[in-house]
Amino acid sequence: MPQEKAIATITNSIADFQMVINDAFLEKAEMLCPEILHHEARPVSEVSISREGNSWKAEWKGTVTDAMKRRYGRGDSLILDFGSHFVGYPHIVLKSVGSPQDAPAYVAVRFGETPAEIGESTADYHGSISSSWLQESTSHMDVLPGEIPLHRRYAFRYMQMTVLDTSPKYKLMIEDILVDTVSSADERALAPCREDLPEDLKKIDAVGARTLYECMQDVFEDGPKRDRRLWMGDFRVQALVNYETFKNYDLVRRCLYLFAGACMNEGQVGACLFTAPRVQVDDTALFDYSLLYVPTLYEYFEATGDRETLEELSETAFTQLRIAAGKLDERGIVRDDPSWWCFLDWNSELNKQAGAQGVYIYCLRYGLAIAELLGKEQEAALIRERLEEAAGAARKYLWEPDLGFFVSGEDRQVSWISQVWMVLAGVFSKEENCALLRRLKMVDPRIRLISPYAHHYYVDALCHNGMEKEITEYIRGYWGKMVEEGADCYWEVFDPLDPDASPYGSKAILSYCHAWSCTASYFIRKWL
Amino acid sequence: MPQEKAIATITNSIADFQMVINDAFLEKAEMLCPEILHHEARPVSEVSISREGNSWKAEWKGTVTDAMKRRYGRGDSLILDFGSHFVGYPHIVLKSVGSPQDAPAYVAVRFGETPAEIGESTADYHGSISSSWLQESTSHMDVLPGEIPLHRRYAFRYMQMTVLDTSPKYKLMIEDILVDTVSSADERALAPCREDLPEDLKKIDAVGARTLYECMQDVFEDGPKRDRRLWMGDFRVQALVNYETFKNYDLVRRCLYLFAGACMNEGQVGACLFTAPRVQVDDTALFDYSLLYVPTLYEYFEATGDRETLEELSETAFTQLRIAAGKLDERGIVRDDPSWWCFLDWNSELNKQAGAQGVYIYCLRYGLAIAELLGKEQEAALIRERLEEAAGAARKYLWEPDLGFFVSGEDRQVSWISQVWMVLAGVFSKEENCALLRRLKMVDPRIRLISPYAHHYYVDALCHNGMEKEITEYIRGYWGKMVEEGADCYWEVFDPLDPDASPYGSKAILSYCHAWSCTASYFIRKWL
Repeated sequence: MPQEKAIATITNSIADFQMVINDAFLEKAEMLCPEILHHEARPVSEVSISREGNSWKAEWKGTVTDAMKRRYGRGDSLILDFGSHFVGYPHIVLKSVGSPQDAPAYVAVRFGETPAEIGESTADYHGSISSSWLQESTSHMDVLPGEIPLHRRYAFRYMQMTVLDTSPKYKLMIEDILVDTVSSADERALAPCREDLPEDLKKIDAVGARTLYECMQDVFEDGPKRDRRLWMGDFRVQALVNYETFKNYDLVRRCLYLFAGACMNEGQVGACLFTAPRVQVDDTALFDYSLLYVPTLYEYFEATGDRETLEELSETAFTQLRIAAGKLDERGIVRDDPSWWCFLDWNSELNKQAGAQGVYIYCLRYGLAIAELLGKEQEAALIRERLEEAAGAARKYLWEPDLGFFVSGEDRQVSWISQVWMVLAGVFSKEENCALLRRLKMVDPRIRLISPYAHHYYVDALCHNGMEKEITEYIRGYWGKMVEEGADCYWEVFDPLDPDASPYGSKAILSYCHAWSCTASYFIRKWL
Repeated sequence: MPQEKAIATITNSIADFQMVINDAFLEKAEMLCPEILHHEARPVSEVSISREGNSWKAEWKGTVTDAMKRRYGRGDSLILDFGSHFVGYPHIVLKSVGSPQDAPAYVAVRFGETPAEIGESTADYHGSISSSWLQESTSHMDVLPGEIPLHRRYAFRYMQMTVLDTSPKYKLMIEDILVDTVSSADERALAPCREDLPEDLKKIDAVGARTLYECMQDVFEDGPKRDRRLWMGDFRVQALVNYETFKNYDLVRRCLYLFAGACMNEGQVGACLFTAPRVQVDDTALFDYSLLYVPTLYEYFEATGDRETLEELSETAFTQLRIAAGKLDERGIVRDDPSWWCFLDWNSELNKQAGAQGVYIYCLRYGLAIAELLGKEQEAALIRERLEEAAGAARKYLWEPDLGFFVSGEDRQVSWISQVWMVLAGVFSKEENCALLRRLKMVDPRIRLISPYAHHYYVDALCHNGMEKEITEYIRGYWGKMVEEGADCYWEVFDPLDPDASPYGSKAILSYCHAWSCTASYFIRKWL
């Protein structure tokens, strides 16, 4: 989901924000609250973590058994590797050895999805995203043996424990250590991917499925480390992967009801939702995120045939189209906006006008399909009209025949994502779309795709235009590269040209299991 | 009780340490476990804390109501004053204001019995006592409103909260704050002190009673901040104050059974006991602390008339005398020892031989009284013999007529505490004792009394030798000075000549409510 960095600097919180509640919808959402499934996992080895160039590597250091035989005094530290990425509640039981425990034990623990989060200094972190997301904790223990009081859920593969102090009279030993893992996805429900796929693609798929698994909690979270909440754009792609993997339809349905049950002013679907301490829509609206409710609802119906839900929530979908229509200028083009009004991609240089127009047209098509399915003739006619107007305006005002690209904003910017969304919007024919996509690859405009989320829509555009051959290559080059870099889950941020880049000045704050990056599994399972 | 500093540097942990358990005694102790009484206390004002010379002062800054109306973001901090010293479990409920809470709140709290513990930097603390005693905690809160997860008991008057981080989208407010106080002392049982006493002595008494109150938990703790456990020497003086104030006889009885139920090798009463996770005697033995079990048992009987307990525990008392006798050389003098074998006072220059001899003789007198009371003629005869031998040896080998003082150790050291214990031991007549005490005051040997615990025995010696006139002056000059310095409870360390001294390099680690300092109330109530 969209990064708080952007939210922080160019907030578009609505001053007269009001939440529009539909109690019946929220009750349905509550009833669909999933059972959380638990497993136990234990560390598999002790490791050391050190810097190699710009990146951090973990190296085998010893067995867990040996680490548990050791005595730890002031300043001693160890790092355990749980072997893969887990989301859950760690239980670490310590005991004292030596004389009776004559002072509290004071210990620090730190959890990392990757070696970088253990290696980088968190004390030096001064990024714009809250340091409260750094997965660290210090605890006093007055009575041993006892469990380190960690009341929070963590997302991690590596755990570092450092003894801040004991007393000269006793030392600490680890008596037991495990993580009680949580997910609402059922591993047993995971359909196997095609047997005849090459091994590397199977691995790329497995990492995607694991990413989704970790993000499936009581809603589809964007990332179990950070921000741990339901974002509309992320949810849409998660739902697509879910249909090919865990098939937890009720969780999708729950999230659809949540967004419809707690809207913003005028019934706009919010960019994201909080579920604790109560359901609350965020005061952030994003043009594209609100609209993506429409295809998400349609695809849910397509996957389940659940016509009742489609009917009940169709008005919410139509409302998003209506609100978006209000954003058009007299030409029929989405009005540009200096604020952070639309997401599309995570590129501060990007002008969003053309991409937003593309999303609008794309979602009108899904809206039309819903209206037709439900026999809502009047709504269908209205949408058809809007569709023609918006597509026509795009061709007339945003298409630059001399360049062979769609342009965006006053400065008539050419970007990758504008082309991607116009292709997905079907503004031109399939042949023209293919030509545009090929031209895009050849010309490679400087304003490129940054987030895995934007990469998803590029691959999606390839899929929908019969360019399957190019998909495999692209998946290997993007998601495959993360696997090569050692990913257990797919990362929030990944630029193959600069695998160690961090937009926040520290890798410690990044989310390394991020739902919007899991869609390789969708492409492999559905399109290959 | 003895400081860990000494324990750390000159540990006398017994290599072949074994615990001698008497299950029946421990069962009795368990049955006598007191009910903990709870009260609620709330902060009374917001204060600012700043340095004045060597000391830290709190100044009124505003009302709690105003502090609760304020919004706290990253880096904001406040200090609340609870108006007096409390021991208990703080409950601090925070809520978020602004946009929905899109990142955990990360807050630090610090508790101080005095302004110094808030003012001094704990990050810079590198003292020999474990930094784990510093009363600070950092917590993450994923969902607001919510309570800061503080699972520990704290001893404090001042509470500082610092917001380490929120997010740019929300701030924190304090919704509720209180402390659930705990003590096994019943305030309603506190007998009023004499109406006709001057106001300053009434205040000195009140602070002493408060000190004891705070230290009365499921045992008599030495200090509710640090070390929170039952030390034999501290227990003896606490019991004396308790008989004049809260009269919780069962708590004394419980502690007597605990020490008798979990002894060290050969049945020696340990210097201190742990009660969690199970009853366990420490592996530290102190010659004087073990012996002080004898007067403590006798005084319990004197206060209660509970003959059954006296009988049942008398063997434990006699055992301490027997073990101590084994420490005598052929002259009948306690063998000196370079290790940390005896406490007496907290003075690294002090030679303990003469003081130990005094404690031994003193305790033999109580042992004799017990044996006579119980009609144990054989034991009485044996003790009488030992008493004569030990007192005679003291007069012969430790008394230096030319100096008019008892001397101690190979270097024949003259110290305050050696004289105090020899006076208490009654080696000479009352007249001679009075002369010795006057000479002590006039000559003022350089090896003086340091701990409030040692000061107690000096005043006790004055009391028992008819020097009541001098007592009042001394109480005003010592305990009264602490009250002048702003003490809510009496401190672990206090030197009127240097009120800001800290033996640990930081005042933050000191215990400012320490049971061995509470005896002013005993003297005021019993002897004035």
